[in-house]
Amino acid sequence: MILSVNTPSHTYPIYIGASLIQLLQRYSTQHIDNNCTIVTNETIAPLYLKSVTDVLKSAGKNVYEIILPDGESYKNIETLQIIYDGLMQQRMERRSTLIALGGGVIGDMTGFAAATYQRGMPFVQIPTTLLSQVDSSVGGKTGINHPLGKNMIGAFYQPQAVFAGLDTLHTLPKREFSAGMAEVIKYALLGDIEFLQWIEQHIEPLMALDNDSLAYAVEKCCAMKADIVAADEKENGQRALLNLGHTFGHAIETQMGYGTWLHGEAVSAGMVVACHLSERMGFISSEDTLRVNNLLQKASLPNTPPEFPFERWIEHMKHDKKVSAGKIRFVVLESLGHAIIKECSDIELLKDCLSAWLPK
Amino acid sequence: MILSVNTPSHTYPIYIGASLIQLLQRYSTQHIDNNCTIVTNETIAPLYLKSVTDVLKSAGKNVYEIILPDGESYKNIETLQIIYDGLMQQRMERRSTLIALGGGVIGDMTGFAAATYQRGMPFVQIPTTLLSQVDSSVGGKTGINHPLGKNMIGAFYQPQAVFAGLDTLHTLPKREFSAGMAEVIKYALLGDIEFLQWIEQHIEPLMALDNDSLAYAVEKCCAMKADIVAADEKENGQRALLNLGHTFGHAIETQMGYGTWLHGEAVSAGMVVACHLSERMGFISSEDTLRVNNLLQKASLPNTPPEFPFERWIEHMKHDKKVSAGKIRFVVLESLGHAIIKECSDIELLKDCLSAWLPK
Repeated sequence: MILSVNTPSHTYPIYIGASLIQLLQRYSTQHIDNNCTIVTNETIAPLYLKSVTDVLKSAGKNVYEIILPDGESYKNIETLQIIYDGLMQQRMERRSTLIALGGGVIGDMTGFAAATYQRGMPFVQIPTTLLSQVDSSVGGKTGINHPLGKNMIGAFYQPQAVFAGLDTLHTLPKREFSAGMAEVIKYALLGDIEFLQWIEQHIEPLMALDNDSLAYAVEKCCAMKADIVAADEKENGQRALLNLGHTFGHAIETQMGYGTWLHGEAVSAGMVVACHLSERMGFISSEDTLRVNNLLQKASLPNTPPEFPFERWIEHMKHDKKVSAGKIRFVVLESLGHAIIKECSDIELLKDCLSAWLPK
Repeated sequence: MILSVNTPSHTYPIYIGASLIQLLQRYSTQHIDNNCTIVTNETIAPLYLKSVTDVLKSAGKNVYEIILPDGESYKNIETLQIIYDGLMQQRMERRSTLIALGGGVIGDMTGFAAATYQRGMPFVQIPTTLLSQVDSSVGGKTGINHPLGKNMIGAFYQPQAVFAGLDTLHTLPKREFSAGMAEVIKYALLGDIEFLQWIEQHIEPLMALDNDSLAYAVEKCCAMKADIVAADEKENGQRALLNLGHTFGHAIETQMGYGTWLHGEAVSAGMVVACHLSERMGFISSEDTLRVNNLLQKASLPNTPPEFPFERWIEHMKHDKKVSAGKIRFVVLESLGHAIIKECSDIELLKDCLSAWLPK
């Protein structure tokens, strides 16, 4: 199936299908220049680099490659430089195409390199994880981490096309698949109670990688995100709702060191904290929180954050990009399936929510 | 005087006046957030940092500073990181303002930091060199150099406002003032024969820093560039004409090492080569070339490039951002005051033009 994403800069397609190679055979040529560089990592390269390269070569393209080390801990300015160096050495031009083959880290870094190499070159996303298929390959957010904060350096930059092959999810480690499920559940929680029910009913086939269930979930999430992003490319309004669980999640990732907790795992625990906060603000019930907890557990996701001093939480959260005039804003649930943004300056309330899981 | 620049993203003003501090007192508050960071360098800081900071502080703003080493050789990813580190440590937010106080290098790097910090924060330019007042502070080009090529990493990003105080030109070293004059002459050559005549008539007061002459020249260049940029923000068409002399100039800068030749000096020699090429293509006369030569000499600018092997010229020029499908494109003069773009694959012709100044 083909979703069309409208952005102020241009419109691009997301191709979703059972076989990545078939998608590329059918649709890639029109989106990729005759000179292209594939950026991938050491884990993905042995799995998909050759077959993807072969498809492009048989379409007559000159294909170069840049293989990076794997992991969130490499999503930094040093690795970005490796991409720039490769592009310069390969003499890539402003109209050549950069192709991101991998998960969110590869997609974010490659997208940022594309946004900034010669002040912007076209790029194409081939997301190979559930997380990147439903989240980081849609919406134009690109970037790298700073030692003091996640995704602090970046740009809004849209791909020319996204190719989401569901077969790539079969080689994904179970833990990473679960991390992707955290984002799937996030979409349901923030905007669609019926989708939440559907996930609850289909959690077993989803976890067993049933193709039809996966296709529906990926399509649904991409469509939801595409709608939100189309209305708000630069994240001034509605789009901030996509950060449900992320303010706490980012604090967890920063505190633990990038990569110790997977992004989706941190978001999962962050969503539970957000549920506690929503509950304490008088929005949702403790039954609602329990329902979210149960679903996350069935997806093999953590629902309690790691324990660390409250002061560190506050410190990390103050670096959040949603901070406005020094006030921390949170995405909370007015009800399951409907998120809103609230400022919270009640330190004791936050402290309570962050220690809600501790033994009392 | 106030020029208004229209870009697809927004419209911003360029304030030009005899006194920088007066311009800031009158107009800065509306463009600068209550939290702001001034980025400058070790040369400019002792001259202007305190007075600029005082104006902003007396308007009630929290003013932070980041002081970088001075020079084109620091326009790199390592110095960019110093800016990011400072912004993170100062806890600058997405809506805080970044202020570039200095020449083109400071403007380009600060603009790129602003374009990419938290995926984009507002920034304001205070250009303190003739070059940056007439060129790099107008048009939204931001970026840094790569060891293999100039301005290879960057973004198109527009300032909120530009403050061009002519008094800052009085502290500028003579050599840098001349380098700025190369760009002034460039505008005349590429698009306005009457402006060329005006410069020829006013070259002495200009070189003597006569305020009225400077004001007219800066305004004229900014207006010309603003017109071109407004029509072509992303450099697909007409805007490329602004690169007159730059294809050769960039090759000189890369070959000699950034900073050995000032940008304007390299552009000056590059324009002479472009004149030779235009002549050989049958466009302008040898008298025209001589006329350009004479004017550049009166502005104390070099009109012969350094001598280095032809192969290195070709190698450097192939990295130029104007390269399209491997062909090198040049900005040449159809007549004085009217530039056009031409591909040139005649290697012998290029070789001749590049050795035209060598003893025969």
